Amino acid sequence: MGSLAHGFYLHDRGDILSMIVQKYGGTSVATIDRIKFIAKLLIERKATDSKIVAVVSAMADTTDKLTDMANEISKNPSARELDMLLSTGEQVTSSLLAMALKDMGHDSIALTGFQAGIMTGNQHTKAPILDIDIDKVKKFLDQGKIVIVAGFQGVDQDGNITTLGRGGSDTTAVALAAKLNCPCEIYTDVEGIYSTDPAIHPTAKKLDYISYEEMMEMAGLGAKVIETRAVEMGKKYDVPIYVALNDGKSPGTYIKELDESMETRVITGLTSNDDDLMVTINNVLYDTKYIYDIFHRLSSMDVNIDMISQTAPVGGYVNISFTAPKDSRSFINRLIDELRNTTGEIEVDIQEDITKISVIGLGMKTQSGVASRIFKIFADNDIEFKQVTTSEIRISYTINTKDKEKAILRIVEEFNL
Amino acid sequence: MGSLAHGFYLHDRGDILSMIVQKYGGTSVATIDRIKFIAKLLIERKATDSKIVAVVSAMADTTDKLTDMANEISKNPSARELDMLLSTGEQVTSSLLAMALKDMGHDSIALTGFQAGIMTGNQHTKAPILDIDIDKVKKFLDQGKIVIVAGFQGVDQDGNITTLGRGGSDTTAVALAAKLNCPCEIYTDVEGIYSTDPAIHPTAKKLDYISYEEMMEMAGLGAKVIETRAVEMGKKYDVPIYVALNDGKSPGTYIKELDESMETRVITGLTSNDDDLMVTINNVLYDTKYIYDIFHRLSSMDVNIDMISQTAPVGGYVNISFTAPKDSRSFINRLIDELRNTTGEIEVDIQEDITKISVIGLGMKTQSGVASRIFKIFADNDIEFKQVTTSEIRISYTINTKDKEKAILRIVEEFNL
Repeated sequence: MGSLAHGFYLHDRGDILSMIVQKYGGTSVATIDRIKFIAKLLIERKATDSKIVAVVSAMADTTDKLTDMANEISKNPSARELDMLLSTGEQVTSSLLAMALKDMGHDSIALTGFQAGIMTGNQHTKAPILDIDIDKVKKFLDQGKIVIVAGFQGVDQDGNITTLGRGGSDTTAVALAAKLNCPCEIYTDVEGIYSTDPAIHPTAKKLDYISYEEMMEMAGLGAKVIETRAVEMGKKYDVPIYVALNDGKSPGTYIKELDESMETRVITGLTSNDDDLMVTINNVLYDTKYIYDIFHRLSSMDVNIDMISQTAPVGGYVNISFTAPKDSRSFINRLIDELRNTTGEIEVDIQEDITKISVIGLGMKTQSGVASRIFKIFADNDIEFKQVTTSEIRISYTINTKDKEKAILRIVEEFNL
Repeated sequence: MGSLAHGFYLHDRGDILSMIVQKYGGTSVATIDRIKFIAKLLIERKATDSKIVAVVSAMADTTDKLTDMANEISKNPSARELDMLLSTGEQVTSSLLAMALKDMGHDSIALTGFQAGIMTGNQHTKAPILDIDIDKVKKFLDQGKIVIVAGFQGVDQDGNITTLGRGGSDTTAVALAAKLNCPCEIYTDVEGIYSTDPAIHPTAKKLDYISYEEMMEMAGLGAKVIETRAVEMGKKYDVPIYVALNDGKSPGTYIKELDESMETRVITGLTSNDDDLMVTINNVLYDTKYIYDIFHRLSSMDVNIDMISQTAPVGGYVNISFTAPKDSRSFINRLIDELRNTTGEIEVDIQEDITKISVIGLGMKTQSGVASRIFKIFADNDIEFKQVTTSEIRISYTINTKDKEKAILRIVEEFNL
């Protein structure tokens, strides 16, 4: 990591840090009073960081209200016009925040995604950032202005307003930090990244740091603190990301490349997810074309399947299990009807009361035995597991929801999370 | 006037008219249902006009709500950020209307002021339109799209979002019509232009047509149907303007250059205004420097004075009367205090119960005697008048408010309004 990143960790050393990008989410700017409070935080910070960019989300509920209007207009609203509609939410917040800063005597400027030079593809409602004409922002930073950028939005090459999709403001912030070659701070309504859900386990530890890879596995599995795209971008462009509560004082979590000098934890975090169901199809003809057909049908219905397991073939037949979001139940039913119409021989079992538990840790790369330690926990505590999948830094288990509390408690104890 | 303008008056002839710009104000798009209704009107109109541009205002109350937020943030909100904030109102309406049209199967595109190529000066909150890069709109019209333009807004040469000030959407519509060389229709919540206020005189006649000049005098005097800037622009670029109720059926009023073949009315309209007070300062030293000083002080306090009269000097002193808005009363009091501190000799009389009545008509240019017919009405009916001012097509009288009803009734009778 470069010197900027180094400086980033020495928060209290009193040096003048050159530049920072901050992001404030919807709850951080939910009311006029909250916006004034954020303005004060920015002014305080200006004393140590001479150049500040703040990316803001829409005020809480605004995006929902706009979406509701669009849905009243049309069951399937035009994506281009939906982007134009939704982008107003962030435009409102950014102009109000710049107004507050100016009212407090600090020069500031609010920029829409377009004005900030954020160029995206034309995939409305989920456009990727292609590039940022960062000179636009730099010009205002050089003038001493606190630059406020409307998050979540950009413009395509034809001048259409686009939005970046879920968590887009995180991506805006990290992309700006990447272009400015400076760290990024994400302020939100949680106190950073926890080893496991503090709502379930009040003793869960807040992590001081976590690697990009670990965070990507955590976020994808339901730790909804920062959008995975933003973490991926941070990793790609080596942008240190700090996630913290928006109260201006609580310490948060650094997401960054972990270097060798740091202590290697075996397990960094544990996540659980009750949002999936598990489908088991028995007596499936063991023919790759036929098996492909099942998953192709699911894919064409946009069903996001996750864990897949398959038994060894017996008599030319296999059993296939997979997990899918509970809210795709109607598509699953359609799939089963279609399969019955074409073969008539399958047996289907759908289980709703399942929980997916994942343990994540860079340490797994170098330390074996994590899986077996967890298998032992399950055996000792009479916990039945249905599926297991692994990646280099993650192991996920599907268990019955009734065993969830017990399983998490034992794992937390075992790995001191 | 050209052929387009000619066609504009033959609304029922069944020809395909090539192009039209329409404007729908805040009450016309106040709710999702209203927006859907306007979409239907536009689709019906597309059957006879192959190219349609619709300019929309913010949904009713939206601008007020946004302004309230700005005022909560700052007593004197930054004009640049205020424009960025307020412009979202029209952006919301335009995207929803285009969405509704697409939902009904008609191709449409919503454009912000910037996307529509509306280039303005940098006078935030009251920016003049400098030019329109009309090729942007034409391209979409040529593609058969109904083009929806967010009214009230544009962009300055540095890419800052600007707003056009009060009634700005009217100006947007007329400017687009001027550039497209086509007529403009303003749909609103009143049934066109009346000879006098129908709320006071239920028998008031709706005018079928009125000249630009007459309309400018009417609008400036409180007939708040269409912004005077828009009428001025219509006159300058010879854009016929049609003002009508937004119900899709009631006939409205044409604002256009009146040609000689049309019947010349002596008086087209009568307006009244109770919003002013009259200040009379007696015993003012008859010295132009001193008199200039009074009006310079008023001007520096931004007090918008209107009718001014001055008596002939007697013994080196004159009496000066002027009218000013009632809500500038505190400034008037300050002026009087300042004058008393400097001279101590003036006598001041402030009358709050006064009404300004104006009669407007192109016919005055060629027919004399209007003033004397009204003076006779006042004499016959024991109506005291305090001040009279005239322009080529307007005469205004200040009378006591108690005589207002009687005066208006007699004038309406006399001139058959």
